[in-house]
Amino acid sequence: MHGKRVGLWLIGAKGGVATTVITGLSALKRGTTGNAGLLTQTESFQKLGLVEFDQIVVGGHDIRPGSLADEARRMWSESRAITPDHLDGAQDDFEAISHRLRPGTVVASGEKIREFADPSVIAIEETPRAAVERIRKDIESFAAAENLEHVVVVNVASTEPPSSRPIPISWKDLQPLLDSAEQCPLPGSSLYAIAAIEAGASFINFTPSVGANPPAIIELAIEKKVPLAGCDGKTGETLLKSVLAPMFVARNLEVMSWVGHNIFGNMDGKVLDDPRNKASKVKSKDHLLAQILGYPPQSLVSIEYIQSLGDWKTAWDHIHFRGFLGTPMTLQFTWQGCDSILAAPLVIDLVRLVDRARQEKACGVLDWLACFFKSPMGVSEQDFSKQVVMLDAWVGNL
Amino acid sequence: MHGKRVGLWLIGAKGGVATTVITGLSALKRGTTGNAGLLTQTESFQKLGLVEFDQIVVGGHDIRPGSLADEARRMWSESRAITPDHLDGAQDDFEAISHRLRPGTVVASGEKIREFADPSVIAIEETPRAAVERIRKDIESFAAAENLEHVVVVNVASTEPPSSRPIPISWKDLQPLLDSAEQCPLPGSSLYAIAAIEAGASFINFTPSVGANPPAIIELAIEKKVPLAGCDGKTGETLLKSVLAPMFVARNLEVMSWVGHNIFGNMDGKVLDDPRNKASKVKSKDHLLAQILGYPPQSLVSIEYIQSLGDWKTAWDHIHFRGFLGTPMTLQFTWQGCDSILAAPLVIDLVRLVDRARQEKACGVLDWLACFFKSPMGVSEQDFSKQVVMLDAWVGNL
Amino acid sequence: MHGKRVGLWLIGAKGGVATTVITGLSALKRGTTGNAGLLTQTESFQKLGLVEFDQIVVGGHDIRPGSLADEARRMWSESRAITPDHLDGAQDDFEAISHRLRPGTVVASGEKIREFADPSVIAIEETPRAAVERIRKDIESFAAAENLEHVVVVNVASTEPPSSRPIPISWKDLQPLLDSAEQCPLPGSSLYAIAAIEAGASFINFTPSVGANPPAIIELAIEKKVPLAGCDGKTGETLLKSVLAPMFVARNLEVMSWVGHNIFGNMDGKVLDDPRNKASKVKSKDHLLAQILGYPPQSLVSIEYIQSLGDWKTAWDHIHFRGFLGTPMTLQFTWQGCDSILAAPLVIDLVRLVDRARQEKACGVLDWLACFFKSPMGVSEQDFSKQVVMLDAWVGNL
Amino acid sequence: MHGKRVGLWLIGAKGGVATTVITGLSALKRGTTGNAGLLTQTESFQKLGLVEFDQIVVGGHDIRPGSLADEARRMWSESRAITPDHLDGAQDDFEAISHRLRPGTVVASGEKIREFADPSVIAIEETPRAAVERIRKDIESFAAAENLEHVVVVNVASTEPPSSRPIPISWKDLQPLLDSAEQCPLPGSSLYAIAAIEAGASFINFTPSVGANPPAIIELAIEKKVPLAGCDGKTGETLLKSVLAPMFVARNLEVMSWVGHNIFGNMDGKVLDDPRNKASKVKSKDHLLAQILGYPPQSLVSIEYIQSLGDWKTAWDHIHFRGFLGTPMTLQFTWQGCDSILAAPLVIDLVRLVDRARQEKACGVLDWLACFFKSPMGVSEQDFSKQVVMLDAWVGNL
Repeated sequence: MHGKRVGLWLIGAKGGVATTVITGLSALKRGTTGNAGLLTQTESFQKLGLVEFDQIVVGGHDIRPGSLADEARRMWSESRAITPDHLDGAQDDFEAISHRLRPGTVVASGEKIREFADPSVIAIEETPRAAVERIRKDIESFAAAENLEHVVVVNVASTEPPSSRPIPISWKDLQPLLDSAEQCPLPGSSLYAIAAIEAGASFINFTPSVGANPPAIIELAIEKKVPLAGCDGKTGETLLKSVLAPMFVARNLEVMSWVGHNIFGNMDGKVLDDPRNKASKVKSKDHLLAQILGYPPQSLVSIEYIQSLGDWKTAWDHIHFRGFLGTPMTLQFTWQGCDSILAAPLVIDLVRLVDRARQEKACGVLDWLACFFKSPMGVSEQDFSKQVVMLDAWVGNL
Repeated sequence: MHGKRVGLWLIGAKGGVATTVITGLSALKRGTTGNAGLLTQTESFQKLGLVEFDQIVVGGHDIRPGSLADEARRMWSESRAITPDHLDGAQDDFEAISHRLRPGTVVASGEKIREFADPSVIAIEETPRAAVERIRKDIESFAAAENLEHVVVVNVASTEPPSSRPIPISWKDLQPLLDSAEQCPLPGSSLYAIAAIEAGASFINFTPSVGANPPAIIELAIEKKVPLAGCDGKTGETLLKSVLAPMFVARNLEVMSWVGHNIFGNMDGKVLDDPRNKASKVKSKDHLLAQILGYPPQSLVSIEYIQSLGDWKTAWDHIHFRGFLGTPMTLQFTWQGCDSILAAPLVIDLVRLVDRARQEKACGVLDWLACFFKSPMGVSEQDFSKQVVMLDAWVGNL
Repeated sequence: MHGKRVGLWLIGAKGGVATTVITGLSALKRGTTGNAGLLTQTESFQKLGLVEFDQIVVGGHDIRPGSLADEARRMWSESRAITPDHLDGAQDDFEAISHRLRPGTVVASGEKIREFADPSVIAIEETPRAAVERIRKDIESFAAAENLEHVVVVNVASTEPPSSRPIPISWKDLQPLLDSAEQCPLPGSSLYAIAAIEAGASFINFTPSVGANPPAIIELAIEKKVPLAGCDGKTGETLLKSVLAPMFVARNLEVMSWVGHNIFGNMDGKVLDDPRNKASKVKSKDHLLAQILGYPPQSLVSIEYIQSLGDWKTAWDHIHFRGFLGTPMTLQFTWQGCDSILAAPLVIDLVRLVDRARQEKACGVLDWLACFFKSPMGVSEQDFSKQVVMLDAWVGNL
Repeated sequence: MHGKRVGLWLIGAKGGVATTVITGLSALKRGTTGNAGLLTQTESFQKLGLVEFDQIVVGGHDIRPGSLADEARRMWSESRAITPDHLDGAQDDFEAISHRLRPGTVVASGEKIREFADPSVIAIEETPRAAVERIRKDIESFAAAENLEHVVVVNVASTEPPSSRPIPISWKDLQPLLDSAEQCPLPGSSLYAIAAIEAGASFINFTPSVGANPPAIIELAIEKKVPLAGCDGKTGETLLKSVLAPMFVARNLEVMSWVGHNIFGNMDGKVLDDPRNKASKVKSKDHLLAQILGYPPQSLVSIEYIQSLGDWKTAWDHIHFRGFLGTPMTLQFTWQGCDSILAAPLVIDLVRLVDRARQEKACGVLDWLACFFKSPMGVSEQDFSKQVVMLDAWVGNL
């Protein structure tokens, strides 16, 4: 390992995305896999001096019981998505990282997520402020123990239900509410975000949960000079929407309806089986159509838990559009992608890019990372090709 | 009809694309259809003062027997693609235009196309030069009789076989060969292009045939101050390729294979049933993948004539790609588009834009029209979103 | 018209299936369409002496406002499914039949169906018994006025919500409850069934509503010597399930999950948008899998109203199965069928076959008609090929 | 191992189907896999006393270089279809069986197959008769050395080009031609069939090659009291055709066109890349439609070699049909099946059933095995459900 060390702190460290990140970083370090899926390994990024794979030290929070190695193994046993040789090769890393995992918090995470939590995690009774403090200290201890130049916290935990309570606009007004679970309107993901920022760590929200979205938290990040990115990694069906919808605009074809059915069987799917949690996800997957098209077609997004599919997210989209002389036509696609396999390299790319931006003293929302997200923070652009141009421009300007 | 009059001269005037253009222009003039499919009717083009629909006068060449109205009716009877009300409403226009049709030439058009020609057209024995002269005069007579400010010639005839004979680079060396069918290496589409240019008309090649591609003909167009655009309208499966392939690049996903099967049953399909003619088309549909991806995946394009489908081009594409940790994944799409319905508004858009460019004294290849074509002249850019940026830039600069 | 006259009384006479039946019978009588979709026009049925198309006289009930001709026209204007020439040709029949339509009843039909009812129908306040009497008299008057040998009543009205109230097993116990809306556990479809039976008419339930299913009503039918058939015409996705599921059995392939998503935009879709009504339909579409396979795979049936599709029922099914050595494999299909176009010939076939069975003195449930239904009455066989064998055997035995 | 021992002699023993059979039998013996895919393990077959998995001894011919274990491993390394644990567990069996493999013959197998042959096999210069004798002795030696009660020879070698030379009808006239390669009209597969029959072994042709089809060879089999079965295992797209086409008949829906595109990347695909070999396969996959429907729809079968897919046969079928009132509708399906995984259990089922039939003194063509084959010998029935009834009847009669 080289001199520089950067920490990657995963919220939801035993989940599919996290274990794939860990397995993948291990394989990349050992040189036993290629660069597929990693944009930061392509030519134009080589000059940036991004953090190397063997300079990334992983730790994280989780609320679940079970060993890290066993959870990682599910990507083979339940999904046939990561081959046994990669998992066997990562055993030493699983072992080392498991010592760096700390219990997460279920404060304000919703009932569904509590169902999956270890009793010892449920047993921790704490105010929102206490949870923030505990999480912050875990991150700081990680940084100190591992001698890290910087830590990037990435939320890859399960999707929370949408928050309906009003959140004060300024940090000054929001901060005092942390003292009481009853008064605090923030969900768990925002507590992690605040803890990360207070620890001086960058925060990336790879889920549709609230995270660092509230203006008061963005204000805090700017004050603490910490970069933020999010929300909700764009990996499959929504990626295709952001690629295909602009085509209909550029041909002035009228999209009458766009139906998307998603089926998959991983932990994320189990959590989304709860309609409250699903609501957050559906919103994140659906809103971009009207933004790109300039009008709302009839649209439908369903997400269903089908156990046999494991991590294989299969999406069928049916797009009904009207062309010249009013003629209706149809485009259908079927996407058979492995969710965690698609998400993990985006997480690694984001860690490298956010760490690089930090070196440039960037702080607050990094809106030029929009192409990675379903609901990009700080920008309304949803056309994927234009989002890619934003990233290219940032790279070109360095 | 307003003062200004612009001619649209269609090569293949009785074909599906041409009759749909004619039916559509008629409906647009009468206000009985909307703007779907017409990019030039969207907001950003409104300030350009493009030629109005009722200012466009149509004429053309064809080699086929049969009446224009009957050929147009096939879009209903064989394809259910244009509704009877639109065809009924266009009867007066069919009648008027049928008087402006002239016999085309089968000189150097290949055996397959001769099969469909009227005996009277086959009977015309002429050298390539004589064919050019005859075509030129038809266009000039049309312009004079209709009092046209300008004529735009659009090739929407069936696809020719690829040309294998070397074509001299300069017009000076090419021009003398027109005297002899044996010596002249040019296919029929190029004879039309030369005739158009010599008549001072703009020339748009909406097919994969050679047309104005030879440098010697581009040289002639520049000399005559005539604009050119082409080749091969991008309407369906290839449009999707140029939209989707960049996504794989932007995620560094390795495309292992891309298979595309196209089935349809219109006249174009009958001509492509001949392997010689199909070769031109397949090449035009396939080459962009390697250009966009930067490497050639295993690829396959099949085009098959299935009579029952009529004008409904149905394409199934299967894209097999490799992601992180070497995991293979799949995207499939099925496109059910009506070929002529997709093509016709592009022809109308092109006529309007080329006419507008001519007013700006543009001549030679208009490369900023790349987004309309499978094999854009004068530019290697195949990424659809970047091609759209080129068009937007031209519009913005006016 | 020949001597014999048989009545076809449609419950839901202005709906898509009914208007397609009417338009189709008109075209068949006039000889302007072929036999596609009509099994009873194939060779093996020719010897049976079935009622001819021009011997069928149509009448019916409906609760909706609007003219029959206008409702029929929607199959063109909203769905492009029946061509204008067929509708134009049927004008005289629409006119004649419109005089034979009577107001239906909304007693016990659920809230959703009331939304679509004409105010004059809502205004009829009647007990269940009064509704039965009124309907019975309508049918009897129809038979008398038109001099009919027999009447076949077919329920093609929208799907009702499932009934949760217990229904007495014997007619003796059920009959008295008709006097009070509060006490009567029967939905509207069963009132129509009772009325038909009491009028001596055959009753076919082409929907998943309760209809003649209660044992007490079957008892009544046997007593009145009236044939019954149902339930729920098998036209599209479920037909495919009953054809494909036996294949997995015959290869001992283990179906792990079977997901079916249905989208369409006709009136039936609007009614099914109400979760209470949808529950009946989903049950009828789903239960056969476990019956055929011998075990319940994880299954999912969604039905969504997508307006732009009109009568075009598009279904995507994803079947995930395990083969030798535990290898998971996938079959997907997309069905693009026009619901009413598929249903209407089945209705005509059923009318002809039930009328023929009546001549043989058949009464009660005709279980050999199972191949026409999703939830066949009187038989648990769900394998389509075996259901076809049952029908063939009946034909062979005549 | 129990007392009884039956031999399974595989022609093409190193191919995908054969190595999957071997790997599967090993796992079944060891109890490390379930019964999925094996019809003979379902309840109705239990009373038949079929040969047990641990009573089957495997040997065979192949022309290819390479070790059996390495060839088997491709099902993991190239296709991810058989998991490493199954392959690891079968090492002892691979080792034992590799000693029972003998060099096959390339006499009359066509040029494409010779390309893949080991030089030592090419070097064997022999007349057809000498090849038959050599093969026969190999089978007899196998039976003697392993103390086998009976041997079943199964042809799972690559598809040969179609034979165009006339073959004498009687064995008396055919037999003398074996002396000369020039005069002998038989392809390699028929030489294997003759050798098997002369060795008293049953012969199953799991490929579309000629095998035992010539009447003269059937005559020989009857004389030698040997059972025959074939041709061409029905595993994927064609299985679906034989299941779905009868549905269109039973609804009197007119199939206008049926297009099937098959892509896959195994050895079979490489051989089929030669148009001569492909012709045999396409014929076997296509002819059943007209037989089932009673008329020939426009049909198209393409088979293309796409390397990245390995053993995963992906088929897209597009069925365009006409329903009531002439309305065109569409069914599409995508089959993603692993070819060898689907074929191997059929081979095992066939060996058990043919061995059982032999005990009943059955000889000549076993036509009740039709459900296993694309081109069933001795019967024209192509409707899968009726073929299954034939098998069930045989089982029921025992």
